[in-house]
Amino acid sequence: MNFREYIRKVEPYVPGEQPQNSRVVKLNTNENPYPPSPEVLKAIEGVSLVSLKLYPDPDCTLLRHTLAAHFGVGDDQVFVGVGTDDVLATAFMTFFNSDRPILFPDISYAFYEVWANMLGIPFEKKPLTDDFRINADDYTGENGGIVFPNPNAPTSILEPVSFIEGILDRNRDSLVIIDEAYIDFGGESVIPLVNRYDNLLVTQTFSKSRSLAGMRIGFAVGSPELIGYMMSVRNSYNSYTMNRTALAAGVASVRDQEYFEKTRNAVIRTRQQAVLRLKEFGFSGPEPAGNFLFVTHEKMPAREIFTALKERGIYVRYFNKPRIGNYLRITVGTDEEMETLYEALGEILA
Amino acid sequence: MNFREYIRKVEPYVPGEQPQNSRVVKLNTNENPYPPSPEVLKAIEGVSLVSLKLYPDPDCTLLRHTLAAHFGVGDDQVFVGVGTDDVLATAFMTFFNSDRPILFPDISYAFYEVWANMLGIPFEKKPLTDDFRINADDYTGENGGIVFPNPNAPTSILEPVSFIEGILDRNRDSLVIIDEAYIDFGGESVIPLVNRYDNLLVTQTFSKSRSLAGMRIGFAVGSPELIGYMMSVRNSYNSYTMNRTALAAGVASVRDQEYFEKTRNAVIRTRQQAVLRLKEFGFSGPEPAGNFLFVTHEKMPAREIFTALKERGIYVRYFNKPRIGNYLRITVGTDEEMETLYEALGEILA
Repeated sequence: MNFREYIRKVEPYVPGEQPQNSRVVKLNTNENPYPPSPEVLKAIEGVSLVSLKLYPDPDCTLLRHTLAAHFGVGDDQVFVGVGTDDVLATAFMTFFNSDRPILFPDISYAFYEVWANMLGIPFEKKPLTDDFRINADDYTGENGGIVFPNPNAPTSILEPVSFIEGILDRNRDSLVIIDEAYIDFGGESVIPLVNRYDNLLVTQTFSKSRSLAGMRIGFAVGSPELIGYMMSVRNSYNSYTMNRTALAAGVASVRDQEYFEKTRNAVIRTRQQAVLRLKEFGFSGPEPAGNFLFVTHEKMPAREIFTALKERGIYVRYFNKPRIGNYLRITVGTDEEMETLYEALGEILA
Repeated sequence: MNFREYIRKVEPYVPGEQPQNSRVVKLNTNENPYPPSPEVLKAIEGVSLVSLKLYPDPDCTLLRHTLAAHFGVGDDQVFVGVGTDDVLATAFMTFFNSDRPILFPDISYAFYEVWANMLGIPFEKKPLTDDFRINADDYTGENGGIVFPNPNAPTSILEPVSFIEGILDRNRDSLVIIDEAYIDFGGESVIPLVNRYDNLLVTQTFSKSRSLAGMRIGFAVGSPELIGYMMSVRNSYNSYTMNRTALAAGVASVRDQEYFEKTRNAVIRTRQQAVLRLKEFGFSGPEPAGNFLFVTHEKMPAREIFTALKERGIYVRYFNKPRIGNYLRITVGTDEEMETLYEALGEILA
């Protein structure tokens, strides 16, 4: 028997294209069009050469404390990781170990299925309704856990806090993960519920509303019990995941609340404008709550528009998948980038 | 059935103490006493604010290319991760999936057992000989894989290339991981063997000889086939693990070969001195090949020396474990730090 027979062979997830050509208008991976707070760069530059020879703080004490103070929870209620993906993968590994299927929407963040496959977790995908809503009635009965994004991706549809509470109430024996990667663009977080629901874990990221995709910082908030179990799993995998520059950048970002609100509000304004402009071009789609729009055109197939935009150096996201094959996901850029998009659409749809 | 019953409950690994008091003489976690190359800081400061909003290169193209060129292998033969721990954990997850036990020494890097336990990998610990050597005859027959550090830790004992080749020859059907975290301090790497042995994976780290523990960079070298499988598993867990500052720091470090050799040689010189000085104090131990010494005292129990040193603000590592309970692991510091150690030992052992 050769070792090759036992290699874990997984179909790798293919992330959105990352063109190195900086002249591209990049509206395909839901990055923030604005740079992070200038305080972040100062903080990174403040990391001394001599400190780099030493391991970083494995407990991420200051970053966890800064986040905890920001959200009004205890320091022991915050877990930080290398982007939301690291945080969610750690949560899957920690909490989804039963032989009952975990539940998530059929149209949702593609990594839930990738992690379940890799970690051998049984799962059931629950179809969204015809208008792409999550049906709360699908999330009842025996299950191995529940996870979905709010707002959902790639639909950009937000559910209210009461909706999440309903699911939590009907699943007191299941762990429920709410993935709030896009919550800052207009939604209300359920972080305040973590002290009422011991089965709730909420994850967020610095990659979207905090413009720090390049630094890889995500976090989870939950009960001290849940966070403690995640820390143990993380420390049994890699005790030092957050490097010194990431820790410093994260703290500086949270502290500059004014800058955060300014850029977040700018994205929301541009998005509202985009809803109107795209409607004029014949697009429609659900009311967006993330920093992206999910739209279909009344005449031209999404794939054709995607290709025509790419030829013009404008990258949006097209998913060649059932049910959403005629939709585009368009990240909200700067006003200038969006004008370039509208001009191109004017030509393509003329 | 409540979700608590299915939580993955692991005994967390306890890393060496990371005292925040900078007046401590820190000889307990095998960090390099010298800062990294000044080019590293320049590279980190060269990361622009505006680039931080964008995801980093998920393929780590430039860092992998720089390492590949350095070692004379193909770019597709290099995997990079968040420190050796991330690299090794990914390798365990990718390659150690059979129901046969993996083999590693009883006295070795503590994380092998931690990962095996967490990932449900059966394992057998093979006892070192009485003089702490790896017995090659233990590593034969059916097994699920082999892993050990060379030099070994915490013994600091190096095995020659021919020893590794013998094990590779007798295990053509098993994957063999050689963990070369400390190889730069005087050993000969087996990286040149990866093109002759398709069952060999070699891992190294930037945390020791490159003084970059604070930036979390490790890598593996192997056949394009092995590296490809690891990339798929990694991309199915977290596509973007290396942040922009870590990628930039890594490239700058490899490029400054002169600085690397200068500081590496300084550590080796100080270590050779330390062997003689500690002998004068009544210590003995194996010939060290890493940036640390593994020593026992002819009269005073290791635990007492450990405690007395700590009271004087000098941290070394003591393992309260079978067979090595009367040994200390002492990281090689600067000459000044070592003088402080010798002075303290003079008092303690007087």
